[in-house]
Amino acid sequence: MSKPLILITNDDGLFAPGIKALTNIAASFGDIVIVAPDSPQSGQGHAVTLDKPLRINKVNTFGNAEAYECSGTPADCVKLAKHLLLKDKKVDLCLSGINHGANSSINIIYSGTMSAAMEASIEGINSIGFSLLDFSFEADFEASASYVQSIIEKTLTYGLPHTNLLNVNIPKLKKHEIKGIKVCRQAEGRWIEEFAEGTDPRGQKYYWLSGKFVTEDDIEGTDEWALRNGYISIVPSGHNLTRHQAIEPLKHFEE
Amino acid sequence: MSKPLILITNDDGLFAPGIKALTNIAASFGDIVIVAPDSPQSGQGHAVTLDKPLRINKVNTFGNAEAYECSGTPADCVKLAKHLLLKDKKVDLCLSGINHGANSSINIIYSGTMSAAMEASIEGINSIGFSLLDFSFEADFEASASYVQSIIEKTLTYGLPHTNLLNVNIPKLKKHEIKGIKVCRQAEGRWIEEFAEGTDPRGQKYYWLSGKFVTEDDIEGTDEWALRNGYISIVPSGHNLTRHQAIEPLKHFEE
Repeated sequence: MSKPLILITNDDGLFAPGIKALTNIAASFGDIVIVAPDSPQSGQGHAVTLDKPLRINKVNTFGNAEAYECSGTPADCVKLAKHLLLKDKKVDLCLSGINHGANSSINIIYSGTMSAAMEASIEGINSIGFSLLDFSFEADFEASASYVQSIIEKTLTYGLPHTNLLNVNIPKLKKHEIKGIKVCRQAEGRWIEEFAEGTDPRGQKYYWLSGKFVTEDDIEGTDEWALRNGYISIVPSGHNLTRHQAIEPLKHFEE
Repeated sequence: MSKPLILITNDDGLFAPGIKALTNIAASFGDIVIVAPDSPQSGQGHAVTLDKPLRINKVNTFGNAEAYECSGTPADCVKLAKHLLLKDKKVDLCLSGINHGANSSINIIYSGTMSAAMEASIEGINSIGFSLLDFSFEADFEASASYVQSIIEKTLTYGLPHTNLLNVNIPKLKKHEIKGIKVCRQAEGRWIEEFAEGTDPRGQKYYWLSGKFVTEDDIEGTDEWALRNGYISIVPSGHNLTRHQAIEPLKHFEE
């Protein structure tokens, strides 16, 4: 039996420790092809590049793994991988991350990491985005390694019934502090934005986005609850945004 | 009773005929504030600008309506409007568009128009994204004007039960050819990408994204079916991506 073909990407670029950690874990399961952005793409959401050309270059930073850097967004990377580099091959699994920073709750919408995984899921590929709740370059990806390995192994062995996209978030804890895994729903939440106002060297005003994530929905069963209580959260996710329960109540719009 | 406050945005910029058409219709319902990107932002998905400052300037292109252009993405525009410009005010409705081009089916994911509407919906504001299936600058926004008006009126009058985000797509038809409105689910579909390969003036290879939208899910009840059969489609949408039906079947990941 041939080994599974695993596509790895992220939104932090090839030099991020998170993608190295993920590649090290995934390498024991199959053949790896890495296609990552050539510059950090945090907050890119599901952006795609339509109005300018893309560049893609083979690089040699991952030992034996085939690796490319691409000038586009995370979603572009997956499109280029699937439709150009791996055109004639079946991709068995797409892994994105491990992101430096949380993508739980509503953050899935803004996340480059998750948009890459989602793009692969739209192509029918089982896909998993991993994020660690630690922004630092020195983040500890070892603590959760055995869990990441188990999630990949179960996905390859049993598939992903009723979904093909997992949003996995990992709390910033030491190995012995992680209590396990919870399969959850996405907590409702939002950002309360604050725009830092400044004046540039030329005397013009600018605003810089910052803000605070808030949720009142951190009850048991949500990803926020799991993370705050020491668990790794897995949210089975999808790309169909229909609110089916609203279709009937809105039928008066047809009149 | 005070008039409703309506925030209008788009992803094509302030000079697009679509936002002018939408503003003309909306102006009869309330007070208008327009915040639109200062450059076209098609395909921006739910990107937000984190790594550089944003600029926002008041402009004078819309008669009496208060209008601003912003250097960011469509989602940035809504964040700036809500948390900076309209900080102390209650926004009653957000309208995005009318986009020049389709945002039906999976295209909601890639759409700057819909990401702006979705951003407002995350803030708890009833939001509607409008898109016309015609890319041209001379697109006819008059044919559907009475329908757009009716959708805005019903939303302001009756609200949006079980959702607060509508994805409205309008077929490219003459007024008498439009058969009416259908409230639908999002059709499954995807893009088969083709990358046009070229060589730049400096001898370097590039790839330019193009492709073809395909769906095998254009059956009755979907937005694709409605549009192909002469109807305006309304898909009640949401920002919570959880696939609830997959939570139980994935419980073995917790072991």
